[in-house]
Amino acid sequence: MRIFEQMESQVRGYIRSFPAIFEKAKGSYLYDEQGNEYIDFFAGAGTLNYGHNNDRVSSALIDYIQKDGVVHGLDMATSAKKRFLQKLQDTVFSPRNLEYKVQFTGPTGTNSVESALKLARMIKNRSNIVAFTNGFHGLSMGSLAVTGNNFYRDEAHISRSNVSFMPYDGYFGPDVNTLDYFRKFLADGSSGLDLPAAVIVETIQAEGGINVASDEWLQGLEQICREFDILLIIDEIQVGNGRSGEFFSFERAGITPDMVTLSKSIGGGLPLALLLMRPELDQWKPGEHTGTFRGNNLAFVASVETLAYWDSNDLSDAIHYKSAILKEELQAIAAKYPDLNCNVRGRGLIFGLEIPELGFAKEVSRIAFEKGLVIELSGADDQVVKFLPPLTIDEETLRKGIAIIDATIGEIISTKQDRLREEF
Amino acid sequence: MRIFEQMESQVRGYIRSFPAIFEKAKGSYLYDEQGNEYIDFFAGAGTLNYGHNNDRVSSALIDYIQKDGVVHGLDMATSAKKRFLQKLQDTVFSPRNLEYKVQFTGPTGTNSVESALKLARMIKNRSNIVAFTNGFHGLSMGSLAVTGNNFYRDEAHISRSNVSFMPYDGYFGPDVNTLDYFRKFLADGSSGLDLPAAVIVETIQAEGGINVASDEWLQGLEQICREFDILLIIDEIQVGNGRSGEFFSFERAGITPDMVTLSKSIGGGLPLALLLMRPELDQWKPGEHTGTFRGNNLAFVASVETLAYWDSNDLSDAIHYKSAILKEELQAIAAKYPDLNCNVRGRGLIFGLEIPELGFAKEVSRIAFEKGLVIELSGADDQVVKFLPPLTIDEETLRKGIAIIDATIGEIISTKQDRLREEF
Amino acid sequence: MRIFEQMESQVRGYIRSFPAIFEKAKGSYLYDEQGNEYIDFFAGAGTLNYGHNNDRVSSALIDYIQKDGVVHGLDMATSAKKRFLQKLQDTVFSPRNLEYKVQFTGPTGTNSVESALKLARMIKNRSNIVAFTNGFHGLSMGSLAVTGNNFYRDEAHISRSNVSFMPYDGYFGPDVNTLDYFRKFLADGSSGLDLPAAVIVETIQAEGGINVASDEWLQGLEQICREFDILLIIDEIQVGNGRSGEFFSFERAGITPDMVTLSKSIGGGLPLALLLMRPELDQWKPGEHTGTFRGNNLAFVASVETLAYWDSNDLSDAIHYKSAILKEELQAIAAKYPDLNCNVRGRGLIFGLEIPELGFAKEVSRIAFEKGLVIELSGADDQVVKFLPPLTIDEETLRKGIAIIDATIGEIISTKQDRLREEF
Amino acid sequence: MRIFEQMESQVRGYIRSFPAIFEKAKGSYLYDEQGNEYIDFFAGAGTLNYGHNNDRVSSALIDYIQKDGVVHGLDMATSAKKRFLQKLQDTVFSPRNLEYKVQFTGPTGTNSVESALKLARMIKNRSNIVAFTNGFHGLSMGSLAVTGNNFYRDEAHISRSNVSFMPYDGYFGPDVNTLDYFRKFLADGSSGLDLPAAVIVETIQAEGGINVASDEWLQGLEQICREFDILLIIDEIQVGNGRSGEFFSFERAGITPDMVTLSKSIGGGLPLALLLMRPELDQWKPGEHTGTFRGNNLAFVASVETLAYWDSNDLSDAIHYKSAILKEELQAIAAKYPDLNCNVRGRGLIFGLEIPELGFAKEVSRIAFEKGLVIELSGADDQVVKFLPPLTIDEETLRKGIAIIDATIGEIISTKQDRLREEF
Repeated sequence: MRIFEQMESQVRGYIRSFPAIFEKAKGSYLYDEQGNEYIDFFAGAGTLNYGHNNDRVSSALIDYIQKDGVVHGLDMATSAKKRFLQKLQDTVFSPRNLEYKVQFTGPTGTNSVESALKLARMIKNRSNIVAFTNGFHGLSMGSLAVTGNNFYRDEAHISRSNVSFMPYDGYFGPDVNTLDYFRKFLADGSSGLDLPAAVIVETIQAEGGINVASDEWLQGLEQICREFDILLIIDEIQVGNGRSGEFFSFERAGITPDMVTLSKSIGGGLPLALLLMRPELDQWKPGEHTGTFRGNNLAFVASVETLAYWDSNDLSDAIHYKSAILKEELQAIAAKYPDLNCNVRGRGLIFGLEIPELGFAKEVSRIAFEKGLVIELSGADDQVVKFLPPLTIDEETLRKGIAIIDATIGEIISTKQDRLREEF
Repeated sequence: MRIFEQMESQVRGYIRSFPAIFEKAKGSYLYDEQGNEYIDFFAGAGTLNYGHNNDRVSSALIDYIQKDGVVHGLDMATSAKKRFLQKLQDTVFSPRNLEYKVQFTGPTGTNSVESALKLARMIKNRSNIVAFTNGFHGLSMGSLAVTGNNFYRDEAHISRSNVSFMPYDGYFGPDVNTLDYFRKFLADGSSGLDLPAAVIVETIQAEGGINVASDEWLQGLEQICREFDILLIIDEIQVGNGRSGEFFSFERAGITPDMVTLSKSIGGGLPLALLLMRPELDQWKPGEHTGTFRGNNLAFVASVETLAYWDSNDLSDAIHYKSAILKEELQAIAAKYPDLNCNVRGRGLIFGLEIPELGFAKEVSRIAFEKGLVIELSGADDQVVKFLPPLTIDEETLRKGIAIIDATIGEIISTKQDRLREEF
Repeated sequence: MRIFEQMESQVRGYIRSFPAIFEKAKGSYLYDEQGNEYIDFFAGAGTLNYGHNNDRVSSALIDYIQKDGVVHGLDMATSAKKRFLQKLQDTVFSPRNLEYKVQFTGPTGTNSVESALKLARMIKNRSNIVAFTNGFHGLSMGSLAVTGNNFYRDEAHISRSNVSFMPYDGYFGPDVNTLDYFRKFLADGSSGLDLPAAVIVETIQAEGGINVASDEWLQGLEQICREFDILLIIDEIQVGNGRSGEFFSFERAGITPDMVTLSKSIGGGLPLALLLMRPELDQWKPGEHTGTFRGNNLAFVASVETLAYWDSNDLSDAIHYKSAILKEELQAIAAKYPDLNCNVRGRGLIFGLEIPELGFAKEVSRIAFEKGLVIELSGADDQVVKFLPPLTIDEETLRKGIAIIDATIGEIISTKQDRLREEF
Repeated sequence: MRIFEQMESQVRGYIRSFPAIFEKAKGSYLYDEQGNEYIDFFAGAGTLNYGHNNDRVSSALIDYIQKDGVVHGLDMATSAKKRFLQKLQDTVFSPRNLEYKVQFTGPTGTNSVESALKLARMIKNRSNIVAFTNGFHGLSMGSLAVTGNNFYRDEAHISRSNVSFMPYDGYFGPDVNTLDYFRKFLADGSSGLDLPAAVIVETIQAEGGINVASDEWLQGLEQICREFDILLIIDEIQVGNGRSGEFFSFERAGITPDMVTLSKSIGGGLPLALLLMRPELDQWKPGEHTGTFRGNNLAFVASVETLAYWDSNDLSDAIHYKSAILKEELQAIAAKYPDLNCNVRGRGLIFGLEIPELGFAKEVSRIAFEKGLVIELSGADDQVVKFLPPLTIDEETLRKGIAIIDATIGEIISTKQDRLREEF
């Protein structure tokens, strides 16, 4: 590991949580240079919804490279891009009666968010944007401004400008409808909240602690947007691509966003990011927002393969089946250790096990890794263990991973008890 | 092409300049679906310095995928990343006595710029940044703020905050040393220019019209930075990676930037972006700047292959050789059509042929494409034909491409003369 | 009036509400050029707490001018300023055990607010400020940023930067403690609310619609400020100087602000503005905030006279006595016209009669003027008739003014009824 | 002085430069409590152009107060305001063929500047403003943003947003036309200078070091504004009101600003500030910019008296006569002490004696005060002794004041020489 310490910036993060040098990966498993095997409950933070080195993807990529397919093409037309657009239309848009124009932004989620915010501001000719507590939308300047976590917001560089934060669903507990608050601010001409061009929101806040907005809340938010002439941007970067059970996480609520940011698994595991927008919002001038890698053709090739999972309902059904298992098992763990006051939240294959005791969740992740499980944390205080396995995980591996968590928690508790006992 | 018109956003650009569907590419050539061949003088805007589907890259990628190498790893340690860091150290840093820490940002140039600006502001605890006229550094909010071109800067979304623009080398003609201006503003406590955290600058402004800063100017700028305690950020995204003749474009001036942004060809044709920083500036907290695709392992694999070009001086020598040809030929063209008042500028294998007559350069690009050459424009008014072939182009293809330009210009002129004649 | 229409900007306001040319004024009365008399329930928006041309003030001014006292002195020491400081100490600070340093800002309330915000940001080295819904703090750029009313906030010039709005007491109805909302945002590191340098708040929102914060709310706010290390700025510009019954409006809640902005009546009717600050917050460098008219010596002379009203409790007692009358009478009016659903709010001699029906309050002000009463409106929709008589008003005049309002409302209602009858 | 030290904020400034308690003042003289007499070459930083306690003003004020004239009237119509507008029209606007609408802003220069910037941004629907190096326009947030001096600009509170600084006339020495620089930035769409709504500029930079823009430069600037559709705001706060020889300082250049900010002496020594604007720019909504003290009726009364000085050319002639004396005498002083390398600059009765040696000018002001002369400094390093006597000063007093400066400089030099001699 010396070369990393010597050459890589202090900013490196996951290498600290998961201190191994990974060499290979397949499906739901990672393997380090020593041949140790790890179950992957992290899935590249939502990039590997279809598993590592998915066979269909690998062979398509190899075939494409062997045939000297265009790899880098900026936003020129290529055969691979044509196939991708067609597949997106046939498999995703048409069955859902969605009509969106597709913008290829730089291949990172934050770039898609930047594009959405720019476009919304231009269309409405208003600078203000409403974001929500605990939202995470990226770390470039425009996206960071709508990201709530102050760990990333330094006085010296933050742009605390033209963004207002409103409380997310459930922010003041289950009995307060936070949309009433938002509506009051909007309706009152002296509230200090200037009419925003757009609202940007996640249906499930992944980094924010696996907070799930209810369908009613999302519908109410859409209603407010229509009423006050505000654009509704749904950030699907982490919870789209089937993560919540359907391809888009907003489908369950029956709403139709004005814009959708999409990245992570949309590239079949390779860098890609899209902005979807209602056709009438496509008011860009040619070349007004660009980016060198916006046409990542290998990602097009990979994506055509992984989008095929949505030709039938099989994957969706499987997610719901495994979701039930995951939920049940986590609730069982919560029940087993009542002193921890755990809270289980989630949908589809994104679940959070919140352990309020400060530092406990971090210990779980650390020890679970020693036991062969890669699992991350989320929430403002890293208090939520975040379950994010590949959507294609088999039931056995899923249960194996959960069992590691169960064992880990048990071990931490008994170690603590031993320590307490020793002290007397 | 119907699917593109129907589904892709109006923002699409190059597909309009080069209206073909490209299927394959090899070395310095692109091929469309009808099998037409095009010489590539665009090179993915600097991403394809080693040509399309470079054999070494292709076979390394195939090998890696076949072995189920880790493709997506966020910033976890992987064997591929380890090899990349080692190669970077051995081939690039060590021979140049450079000591830089490496940050892997989201794999787009703009993300690297965003990181640099953030870090500089945090380190110096000052918000202000100095950028230069005609500079281009990307289109996310932080980078756009330091990008001069008002085509991208819309009143509704631009952040005109904490950035001051100073005149680039030669901005007021050859007789004015623009650094004197900058120095005066800095030295005068009432100038309105608050001491910046950093200066961000390109040694050759690629998008800005192939403006080449002199060595003296770059040295003077470094001197000013040292004197006033300002960080010097060199943006090498487009002109690094050998484009100017040496690996880094700033080498010729003998200066040592505090930070270097690197992208495009550093990933061997695949999405990758780095921020290099002096070790003492590496003051990030772990995870303080992140991005899902910051560990693009396929790009590491590709890059190890293309960095190998710098194990010897061969490529550098070849660039200088071809640079001389390019320069000579362009000067010959300029001389051949004296009425056009062309201006030839450049270094290494980035050259601009400025044709002042409005719209003429655009016509050159359009007709050259019909003749089988892909070539782009730059400058505020698209008045500069931009020569950016792969560094690995063979002499014959280079000359063939230039000849197309020559013929194209000749043709445009004679068509115009015909038209004039007809009018009488 | 022609000269006003011809020469004065469209921005003129009160001249439209009260279309007369006023020539003389005395106590609680104004007189126009035709000799018509008007009761003044507006009191210069809180500047004339001691009445027009208060005898003590007039004779002191004449005496001072006759003796060639220094009239304009910037912030040089003058005898008049010395007397003012001494009087402020003896009459205001000492009896209340307050220790404040006094800054003389430009003689407008907004300048005092600008100073407070600047100083708070410098001291805490944080840019963010929390303001409250319906707050009004002035219209220069820094003050406007903390003023909620969007009538004043134009997209082209507003600085929507480094200010967050929180709900004022009662904003979501009587059952919601809005401080819980504020506290939650502060305590949550991912709320998007960056720790502010200061909170700025009025104890009674005068322009905002005569909204009175409860003592508990103010105490709770002070408590939050202490807990989170936030400075508490109380804006006393309109409701200080005895308006609420005590000299400072915050006295009733038993809190001690870190800074206090003071203007309007502090100058005895002449332009003056102060910033009071705890001694340890006085971290200005000499001359760091200036203003040509910050030493308005005529205002010092006038103020020494009017501060004398606070040598005893007489004025305070009289305010409370008249306050009870005003409240009772307004409640009687509200009861008399139940269909109007009026709401009576206020304290001391600032009261609001809210008449929800759109435009009704405006009609009241207009017709009352015809009947010889000058009275203004407030609230986001001008729906609140605002009672702001001089504190020195005699009981008879007070009752006379209220009677005009009563008669006016009755008249408007019967006119409406007549009109309705005619329509059938 | 104890009460000042105990109660007044550290921010107090001039009290430190001129440590006396002033009691009376008349014409060009100040008197302290001990009866010491001081010649006033400071004139309230331009507020006392007609001298202290000008007889006409004093008697008009006393008369007005005795008659119970309206003192405070917000922006209601009053007889005093009517007379002021008429006088302004007859004496200032009509003879100069100027057609301006008059806005009464809060009675401080900075408030007038804030209004001008707001209005310009609204009219043009552009946020950017161009200001000039060494410009000073006030210290509230909007005005401070266009003020160059970094002594006032703290990282924590400065709004470094929507303002670009351009070099003032002579900024790069006498051989560089700085307008060429400005024009180049405007004409180049990639310069980073977004088209501003307005330019704000002083014809003579008073705080900035008595820098006098040439007529040609001002004409060129007006020309650029017309060409690029930019509003021209002339800040006349310090150098208007006859200070430069004519009523408006821009008259000499034959230009017609779109807006003019006016304060200081326009109130006859009392707080008043105006914004003048071309009628077609008067696009305010009623009440859109307000301020409690915007109708300072005592200032109207005083101003009517002092504007009468402009009924004939007498004052203007007298200024020019005394200007010649001042210039000649200062040049003589510069010639007398060649080692000081003094530079003499100015116009009318605003002159600067620049003494490059750091701290020397400060010493001059300090010792001159001991000798009975009040005189201030300006420039970024307080290196310029600033001559700003009342316009009504008599020749004898003028010469007496200058003689004190001469003597003071001589004394400082000989003291220094003595000290040097002692050291050997």
